[in-house]
Amino acid sequence: MSFTHRHTVRYLEVDAQGVVFNAWYLGWFDDAMTAFLAHRGLPYQAMLDTGHDVQLVRSEIDWTSGARFQDELDVAVATARLGRTSFALDFAVRRGDEPICSGRTVYVVVATDGSGKRSIPPVIADALGEPAPLRA
Amino acid sequence: MSFTHRHTVRYLEVDAQGVVFNAWYLGWFDDAMTAFLAHRGLPYQAMLDTGHDVQLVRSEIDWTSGARFQDELDVAVATARLGRTSFALDFAVRRGDEPICSGRTVYVVVATDGSGKRSIPPVIADALGEPAPLRA
Amino acid sequence: MSFTHRHTVRYLEVDAQGVVFNAWYLGWFDDAMTAFLAHRGLPYQAMLDTGHDVQLVRSEIDWTSGARFQDELDVAVATARLGRTSFALDFAVRRGDEPICSGRTVYVVVATDGSGKRSIPPVIADALGEPAPLRA
Amino acid sequence: MSFTHRHTVRYLEVDAQGVVFNAWYLGWFDDAMTAFLAHRGLPYQAMLDTGHDVQLVRSEIDWTSGARFQDELDVAVATARLGRTSFALDFAVRRGDEPICSGRTVYVVVATDGSGKRSIPPVIADALGEPAPLRA
Repeated sequence: MSFTHRHTVRYLEVDAQGVVFNAWYLGWFDDAMTAFLAHRGLPYQAMLDTGHDVQLVRSEIDWTSGARFQDELDVAVATARLGRTSFALDFAVRRGDEPICSGRTVYVVVATDGSGKRSIPPVIADALGEPAPLRA
Repeated sequence: MSFTHRHTVRYLEVDAQGVVFNAWYLGWFDDAMTAFLAHRGLPYQAMLDTGHDVQLVRSEIDWTSGARFQDELDVAVATARLGRTSFALDFAVRRGDEPICSGRTVYVVVATDGSGKRSIPPVIADALGEPAPLRA
Repeated sequence: MSFTHRHTVRYLEVDAQGVVFNAWYLGWFDDAMTAFLAHRGLPYQAMLDTGHDVQLVRSEIDWTSGARFQDELDVAVATARLGRTSFALDFAVRRGDEPICSGRTVYVVVATDGSGKRSIPPVIADALGEPAPLRA
Repeated sequence: MSFTHRHTVRYLEVDAQGVVFNAWYLGWFDDAMTAFLAHRGLPYQAMLDTGHDVQLVRSEIDWTSGARFQDELDVAVATARLGRTSFALDFAVRRGDEPICSGRTVYVVVATDGSGKRSIPPVIADALGEPAPLRA
């Protein structure tokens, strides 16, 4: 399943090199994940209400260009892998046809009561859908 | 009571104008408040353990210059006013002898259980000490 | 002139108190200013192309409530004052009918070549329009 | 070559889960890189003065724990790989003996005049020293 989140580059995201500072991409990936799950029928609060939350355990990003102030970016997000207690999402950031970066994040599902990892419940698996990776 | 917190300007804080983006100053004020209270014998967690927390209700900042990457800044913080349920802190940011900005923030004391405003307890009043404003 | 910018609260903006950390409001004000000027016919780059830029010299914010994750906020922005080399904008953040905060920021107009303050040129004055403050 | 940068977790870095939001780690890595190069005799401005700058082209992070407010963290940084136009740094974040995460970032060396990639000049190679990866 794939979904696209739109982001307009903010002035505070641009550094002295005139391009977006790298850390903000992880913020956009997080925004895109939230929007993706909501689009797939699972708003973040609804997930928490089932007693489950997700924690990031891995991220990787490869950049091929830099985004600039006021760029209107498409942040594509897709389910890349679905495991027993963890899943991966792929991200691809584009400015029109031009790729800016691609990334992958891995999450584990945990209980909201602090008791640790949980098997991915059907409600989350259904929202994630069939894996369709954007990265090789 | 006065105290100085040191901050070295980070690359991510500098925007396309080559100076620190304004929002980061509020982050430094928050860091300086935490360090000030700890220096005065009240680490943030110890305050929470008494059942009290603080919420920002007002901030104001006046800039006279802009801070730049790698500047080593002194963020002076002082108690400006002590009321019944609220107090004010003053801040002055300097690069050596050169003033960068001054600010004031006003906090209300609230209960950590969500039940609302509280009178400033002696443990917080003692940490704040006698008001000695940095701003007129 | 008044204009409303929409912002959905991001996960990274919410702190351990469960509400948006104060510094992010200045980021939203900056976003709203950019959107306001563009809506009024002056995209930021077009302003730079005239040889003028703006620098923040004062900000003030008064909070009456805290914004929470996924809140859809209306950030109203209006011209509050128009001087010779400086102008002020007013901001009001609302969640539906509920006010979250109001703020005012003051900018000076400077030359992009680093030569300092400039009188507000007609292109900026026209974009700002007649002052109509949101704050008393 | 290895070097350790100290970071105290800030209130604004902690999210509603009570742990540091993931994006801030990339900010710490950037701070640690700057401090590492300066410690090795190459302050960032001195590098720019030679006509060279660095751009991030890849980052990866693996987390094993989450950092909390006021944690005093050691961010170890080491040269991991030295190529013709690119180099990699490794990072390991620890809270005392407990590992929080490890990461690797890859940079390309570019000309400050915008003319693109450059071979790593001796002044940067000397500052990076012999590779001694922290990650397998």
